[in-house]
Amino acid sequence: MKIDVCYTPELIHQFEVENKTVVVIDILRATSCMVAGLGSGIQSITPVATVEECEALGAQGFIMAGERGGEKVEQFHIGNSPFDYMKPEMKGKKVATTTTNGTQAIELSKNAKEVIIGAFLNLSAVVNHLMKSENDVLLFCAGWKGKYNLEDSLFAGAVCNALKQNAELESDSALCAFFLYQSMASDLAYYINRSNHAARLSKFNVKEDIEYCARLNEFNVVPKLVGSELTV
Amino acid sequence: MKIDVCYTPELIHQFEVENKTVVVIDILRATSCMVAGLGSGIQSITPVATVEECEALGAQGFIMAGERGGEKVEQFHIGNSPFDYMKPEMKGKKVATTTTNGTQAIELSKNAKEVIIGAFLNLSAVVNHLMKSENDVLLFCAGWKGKYNLEDSLFAGAVCNALKQNAELESDSALCAFFLYQSMASDLAYYINRSNHAARLSKFNVKEDIEYCARLNEFNVVPKLVGSELTV
Repeated sequence: MKIDVCYTPELIHQFEVENKTVVVIDILRATSCMVAGLGSGIQSITPVATVEECEALGAQGFIMAGERGGEKVEQFHIGNSPFDYMKPEMKGKKVATTTTNGTQAIELSKNAKEVIIGAFLNLSAVVNHLMKSENDVLLFCAGWKGKYNLEDSLFAGAVCNALKQNAELESDSALCAFFLYQSMASDLAYYINRSNHAARLSKFNVKEDIEYCARLNEFNVVPKLVGSELTV
Repeated sequence: MKIDVCYTPELIHQFEVENKTVVVIDILRATSCMVAGLGSGIQSITPVATVEECEALGAQGFIMAGERGGEKVEQFHIGNSPFDYMKPEMKGKKVATTTTNGTQAIELSKNAKEVIIGAFLNLSAVVNHLMKSENDVLLFCAGWKGKYNLEDSLFAGAVCNALKQNAELESDSALCAFFLYQSMASDLAYYINRSNHAARLSKFNVKEDIEYCARLNEFNVVPKLVGSELTV
């Protein structure tokens, strides 16, 4: 098995996704929300690119979720906090979501053999899923507005670290993500809090979100894209 | 002073270069050659994008240097080995050079306030130059065919490490380059040898080049772009 890392959507054209399992990673906070929500009983999550598409699904009865620039879209039911996704009243619901980075990365992955959702919250479940599969793996960091970010790269490194006995790290980006994880593994939450993204989000008073998104293995689920929906 | 890192030419549009000192980095081997050559008495080096432009300067008496895909261009005088650039007969000569990655990165930096050349061979000289300047800094990794690479990112991290008391690391790419360097500083040559680029170059029998390019502070020079020429 080969494993590679794409650090931002702006570099995705450098990678062939067709025969691979692509793991979409947007730790703060889109993929953490997806894992928390589907792990807590949400029926399905449909990622869409625009506010308008989200509203169209809202008119069909979907819960509308998501943010722009870190803040809840005003007319939506919920924003982009994992705690919103874990509320008891969300159980069994169908959710449509749009976010600045994560949902775009999912859209760019659609030609892959398989698209799954990764976050620290389901790290072990993702690793176990990849180990059972025979597909090569692309860890696809959503980044922030096309830029490299720490927390997504760090998660990619955590997967590389867990798989390195079974997989070949295919490029320098995989190798360096692995070394980054090794240097930060002792205190993930501390380093994620030092990231630019955490600094940007701090003005929105979401400290608890960031701490929660740094937790390991809260959920034993692997959200998978089937058609336009993520389910487990 | 702010310091940032661009990991590949494909991401350079994300950065403003106009008011900055840009440090172009292509450790294996373009910028290492430039430092070794200008540190050994070459009069000037003119980086050009194409083999044809190099030949046009060759017709004017320039030494023609460079590679494509890691190999010397057949009709050129020298290839892309730092040892070629240090030959006694090169002293006082004007050189025109074209390489796969490094010369393109220089071209993309031309709107900067200042463009200088960095390599492990002149790390301290680069750091001292940046500390004396009041300009913000962009460390621009040439990468490999648009991709992230280990050795250029590692050098960027070495500069971030040396400047971190005096400079603000502006983004996650700077922060992570710094941590990468910290995790590899104990044996730079070993890690550079583990890079994809070193693996690609190994088939060209340039092991000594790679070892040499990992050496620290062999030259106390800072090549600077003035017009179309690099000089010290």
